[in-house]
Amino acid sequence: MSAPDYSALGFINILVSLDGPVLVILMNRAKQRNSWIGSVPGELQKVFDLADKDDRVRVVILTSEHTAPAYCAGADISGGWNVLWDPEEEKEGHHAHRDSGGKTSLVIYRCRKITIAAVNGHAAGVGMTAMQLPFDFRFVWAGAKLTFPFVRRGIVPEGASLTFLYLLPRLIGQSRANSLLLTGATFTADSPIVAALYHQILPTREAVFPAALAFAKELAATTSQVSIAVAKGLIQHPGDSAEENHLYDSLAMRTLGGTADGEEGIRSFKEKREPKFSGTLSKDLGPWHPWWRDVNTTHRKAKL
Amino acid sequence: MSAPDYSALGFINILVSLDGPVLVILMNRAKQRNSWIGSVPGELQKVFDLADKDDRVRVVILTSEHTAPAYCAGADISGGWNVLWDPEEEKEGHHAHRDSGGKTSLVIYRCRKITIAAVNGHAAGVGMTAMQLPFDFRFVWAGAKLTFPFVRRGIVPEGASLTFLYLLPRLIGQSRANSLLLTGATFTADSPIVAALYHQILPTREAVFPAALAFAKELAATTSQVSIAVAKGLIQHPGDSAEENHLYDSLAMRTLGGTADGEEGIRSFKEKREPKFSGTLSKDLGPWHPWWRDVNTTHRKAKL
Amino acid sequence: MSAPDYSALGFINILVSLDGPVLVILMNRAKQRNSWIGSVPGELQKVFDLADKDDRVRVVILTSEHTAPAYCAGADISGGWNVLWDPEEEKEGHHAHRDSGGKTSLVIYRCRKITIAAVNGHAAGVGMTAMQLPFDFRFVWAGAKLTFPFVRRGIVPEGASLTFLYLLPRLIGQSRANSLLLTGATFTADSPIVAALYHQILPTREAVFPAALAFAKELAATTSQVSIAVAKGLIQHPGDSAEENHLYDSLAMRTLGGTADGEEGIRSFKEKREPKFSGTLSKDLGPWHPWWRDVNTTHRKAKL
Repeated sequence: MSAPDYSALGFINILVSLDGPVLVILMNRAKQRNSWIGSVPGELQKVFDLADKDDRVRVVILTSEHTAPAYCAGADISGGWNVLWDPEEEKEGHHAHRDSGGKTSLVIYRCRKITIAAVNGHAAGVGMTAMQLPFDFRFVWAGAKLTFPFVRRGIVPEGASLTFLYLLPRLIGQSRANSLLLTGATFTADSPIVAALYHQILPTREAVFPAALAFAKELAATTSQVSIAVAKGLIQHPGDSAEENHLYDSLAMRTLGGTADGEEGIRSFKEKREPKFSGTLSKDLGPWHPWWRDVNTTHRKAKL
Repeated sequence: MSAPDYSALGFINILVSLDGPVLVILMNRAKQRNSWIGSVPGELQKVFDLADKDDRVRVVILTSEHTAPAYCAGADISGGWNVLWDPEEEKEGHHAHRDSGGKTSLVIYRCRKITIAAVNGHAAGVGMTAMQLPFDFRFVWAGAKLTFPFVRRGIVPEGASLTFLYLLPRLIGQSRANSLLLTGATFTADSPIVAALYHQILPTREAVFPAALAFAKELAATTSQVSIAVAKGLIQHPGDSAEENHLYDSLAMRTLGGTADGEEGIRSFKEKREPKFSGTLSKDLGPWHPWWRDVNTTHRKAKL
Repeated sequence: MSAPDYSALGFINILVSLDGPVLVILMNRAKQRNSWIGSVPGELQKVFDLADKDDRVRVVILTSEHTAPAYCAGADISGGWNVLWDPEEEKEGHHAHRDSGGKTSLVIYRCRKITIAAVNGHAAGVGMTAMQLPFDFRFVWAGAKLTFPFVRRGIVPEGASLTFLYLLPRLIGQSRANSLLLTGATFTADSPIVAALYHQILPTREAVFPAALAFAKELAATTSQVSIAVAKGLIQHPGDSAEENHLYDSLAMRTLGGTADGEEGIRSFKEKREPKFSGTLSKDLGPWHPWWRDVNTTHRKAKL
């Protein structure tokens, strides 16, 4: 469908390039330790939203320069918490506030393509939350220092990113999540407390992005864009019981079995070769998906 | 209650035998890599449904010959996806389809006896889903090649088995589940990605079934059939909060405390010996169980 | 707010002392293997309820003498299950029973301070459930023998503590939970089946409490009482979706950003020093918290 020229969108905090089916987003604030400020969350939201709709994109990788002092040092709060509040929301009152880390997390979480965080440096606050937890896969440098410091800052999620209270226990269990969330302590990526968060742990900083890119290209070449989108939908919306899940899955199975990708799946299986899938979300997802209700989290203004 | 002669039920895809309180189900399609086709799911559903009601059975083991080329190679889709559709359901339309892997998973999941998958060979697709995930325990050969290949087949769960999107994240956490579900990659059982799925990992294929059988006999000799059924019920239906769970559990505790098995529990505790439980589901479960609502997943036909 | 003299409250089963901001509860039934009987659950409920409201307390540790034969051997059921039933509840019938282990678990779970179980000895039944699972952190001796024996006693949770069916799968995943819950087998703390339950595993019994105390003092000195309470609330009540969680978290973030602790968080961040938080639950939690509905689990009597 839409095929944006990512280099012409005027991003200043990120560098975005399309490497075949893999969209690579490079943080462009190395000198500022890739901290969040001003337009950072908005640019990330925009690029993940575009990637979701761009049929050319099968995998999205977020990373930083491996020579940067950090993958992301968190929100830049040197100006006080005020930098996190939106003036328009403030007019309505505290109840109108919507956390920018949370907004960004939701956009990444809802992106129907495969998403990978290539964490090739230290990470704190929003660098642990929005920049890691909503992703499908995380690659990390074994020596990365990782911390969720918010209980040591007198707030809830430092740098603003609520989803980690929702996502982290689901990702690695509540026992390990407590060790991270309620201490504010720093762990390296190879600690048993945090290791299960990562698909792959690499020995050096410079090895992280190449490993993630090779993984991304392999997945892009062998998986169906439609299958991935439906699988992610079912994972995020499993229903309230095994039975409800059975109904969703049966419908998904029956529908996808009749698509061009489903037929290529059978053909490649019989011919004992890797499949070549051509189905795209804009043409082949079908009207039945998504079947879940949309949740609107924007503030409803008091006056029109 | 019912005491079927499992050898006289006309199964052709499985061999079923009762070894004291342990029902052993052996896949009988070694030459076909124990793949699923035709009547395989129906026979599995029938035998697990019988085992659920047969008071003699305390533990059920599903396994294959350790010399077979695979524990289960998945669904045999050489005839196309069509082999998975039920002609009666097709008359009603796609919305009437109920996945055979999902149906089988639900029957195994609901079986109130202890269930064990003894995975003594490679497993793919439905061999990973319906034939492993709904079980209480999984034993595996360390060298078994394990894969959930569906995103590489253009569909959702290959060989049809939705429950893995529901069960797998609950079993080992979403982080590890993503590494399996969204890659379609192959892992051996001793990989940290998948190891937590298994109660025990054995060094050789031939060691898997004997280890599972010894474990089964020990549990059959020392656990209460009623306690197991109630515990499984509470695990699968924990309620929506710690408080709701407290109400269920208090009722379960108070009721079971007054049963013959509850009294034998006290006696054996005082006499410092192993208990001998005689309670059975048909006589001693009581009218209060199950207390959860039944969910009907069958298709409601458009016309009578 | 209230500042009780814990040594003057007449406890007989526990010894309670305030070490600065850390409340230490020592089981005082070493000769009886710290088993539960009579007033044990009531005393634990009382002290955790007081700790929740006492602004001086930032962390609570429960432990036993490291020379005791056990951290807790479970409920003392030598008098039969009857010792667990409450005469007042019995008058109303079985449906009025509320498990004492469950009641205690809920009080500990709801305590808004950091809670730590320092498990410096063997643990069985309620010693595994109410005395470990509702805590934020567990420290353990590597050689501790741990068991959930209830399926071998003909009941549901031995010594009465339902919450483990709700909490344990959330803490370490259903796969590991099944290995513990449905076998009644005994594991040492360093087994891969149970290790993820513990924040730290110590080589000797005598090392457990000092490690827990040092950890407690460090957290007490560096974390905000209000941040911890709100974080625990969000962890226990994450909402039904990522979106609902986003709304809760945004409100928490916006509100805490304006508190004295939030300001100290910014100041200490700029000054590159450890923070000194003065906020207390009684003064600084604000009217918006908790925002979740209260669940009343007490029995509603048939007659007034």
